[in-house]
Amino acid sequence: MFEAAFPIEFGDCDPAGIVFYPAFFRWFDATFQRWLRDKGADQALIRDRFDAVGTGLIEAGASFRAPVRPGDLLSLAIAEVVWEERTLRVSYRGTVAGRTAVEGHEVRGLFALRTDGTLRLVPLGDLRAMLSA
Amino acid sequence: MFEAAFPIEFGDCDPAGIVFYPAFFRWFDATFQRWLRDKGADQALIRDRFDAVGTGLIEAGASFRAPVRPGDLLSLAIAEVVWEERTLRVSYRGTVAGRTAVEGHEVRGLFALRTDGTLRLVPLGDLRAMLSA
Amino acid sequence: MFEAAFPIEFGDCDPAGIVFYPAFFRWFDATFQRWLRDKGADQALIRDRFDAVGTGLIEAGASFRAPVRPGDLLSLAIAEVVWEERTLRVSYRGTVAGRTAVEGHEVRGLFALRTDGTLRLVPLGDLRAMLSA
Amino acid sequence: MFEAAFPIEFGDCDPAGIVFYPAFFRWFDATFQRWLRDKGADQALIRDRFDAVGTGLIEAGASFRAPVRPGDLLSLAIAEVVWEERTLRVSYRGTVAGRTAVEGHEVRGLFALRTDGTLRLVPLGDLRAMLSA
Repeated sequence: MFEAAFPIEFGDCDPAGIVFYPAFFRWFDATFQRWLRDKGADQALIRDRFDAVGTGLIEAGASFRAPVRPGDLLSLAIAEVVWEERTLRVSYRGTVAGRTAVEGHEVRGLFALRTDGTLRLVPLGDLRAMLSA
Repeated sequence: MFEAAFPIEFGDCDPAGIVFYPAFFRWFDATFQRWLRDKGADQALIRDRFDAVGTGLIEAGASFRAPVRPGDLLSLAIAEVVWEERTLRVSYRGTVAGRTAVEGHEVRGLFALRTDGTLRLVPLGDLRAMLSA
Repeated sequence: MFEAAFPIEFGDCDPAGIVFYPAFFRWFDATFQRWLRDKGADQALIRDRFDAVGTGLIEAGASFRAPVRPGDLLSLAIAEVVWEERTLRVSYRGTVAGRTAVEGHEVRGLFALRTDGTLRLVPLGDLRAMLSA
Repeated sequence: MFEAAFPIEFGDCDPAGIVFYPAFFRWFDATFQRWLRDKGADQALIRDRFDAVGTGLIEAGASFRAPVRPGDLLSLAIAEVVWEERTLRVSYRGTVAGRTAVEGHEVRGLFALRTDGTLRLVPLGDLRAMLSA
């Protein structure tokens, strides 16, 4: 569906010489944000259009298949997007030189602020239509 | 079992004004490393003792229950550690002012380098004994 | 004047086994934000009070005196705050076990948005008074 | 001399909606590491060749000229490299859409471990020759 590339830097890696794992989630999020922008949306537009805080996270997970090192080029593909009434599940597959290095997912919602300060999940029909247009 | 506290900084938060979610995994890892040090071990000692690369990640996941903001104090507790033959599952619960903000887990292994450069999982009996001593 | 402590984590360090240097600037910023909060202010309050974007950066610099490693405890002191008409210079000194590890500074301003979308520097008299109260 | 491009992500930005400034130093470092790799070197090779810990930091600084936001593309150019006997000063200029956003520098040395565990600066003649080849 959509793919983003991330050059792996020295500073992304820990004393074991491999990627410090939270960075993979940073790249999942960056891939999602680039996918939105590729479809003509971004967090600023979504905030304005839906009077929302943004597409926040409900859940995230990853399986680490192979170590990734400085100088590697990580290709992150959005393997699948599954829309529910008020949540969105995005699956990622990351490869280095064609070999799977990481698989993961995010469950996101479109959050808006209630007048009492708590958050509520906005139904996703309009966002889905906007991204399919 | 073990608890670590993380003051939430302005720089940990994103344009929505809440913690950018990969930071929670950074704090999971920090809690794990502090737990090791609290038991007299650290990655350097583990590398020497087991001729290993370190206790790397196989899997990680989190559920985000409530937004966390600058000025909050996040308490991360290790809720459970489950030892298998060659893997270790650590469960985390994070609270802010007594309210659950995040729950997550890591599956880790003790990785050593084979002579051909690939990684293998070292049996965990000795590490477990070392941490229980 | 003011001091903040930062436990150095495995994940703050790079493949050379020492702190990846941009992290020191993250801790400078965190020390500044804690200092504001200690004086009853924070970025949200400052935004509201001065109709501003916040206390952004104009310049930053650091000298690295000694390597800092996982398990070290970095104490960052605000050594000096020099107020000018529209800028503020904050000097930091970081020590590990009493030994100087890093020295640095930030030049900050209070930025507000002009109607044409550009930024302007707000005079600092009122902020200074607020922090001295 | 050398240029690297960095897409600015949502997660690189703070609650003010602009790049959290330590990220610029992360990109300075990434530009330096890419420049090394572009010349056939990297930290692993340098460690082996010079029996060194790596090209660590002695000093770093930056001036922030204009805010940088999610969706911007930051081009970082190495404006100048000045070699001294045991130090190396690298100057950076960062632009977004042709407009200067950040200027900065790093002073680096090639550090090796003495037998007593302290660090010493290795003369840079051989590294310079290697990078000019």
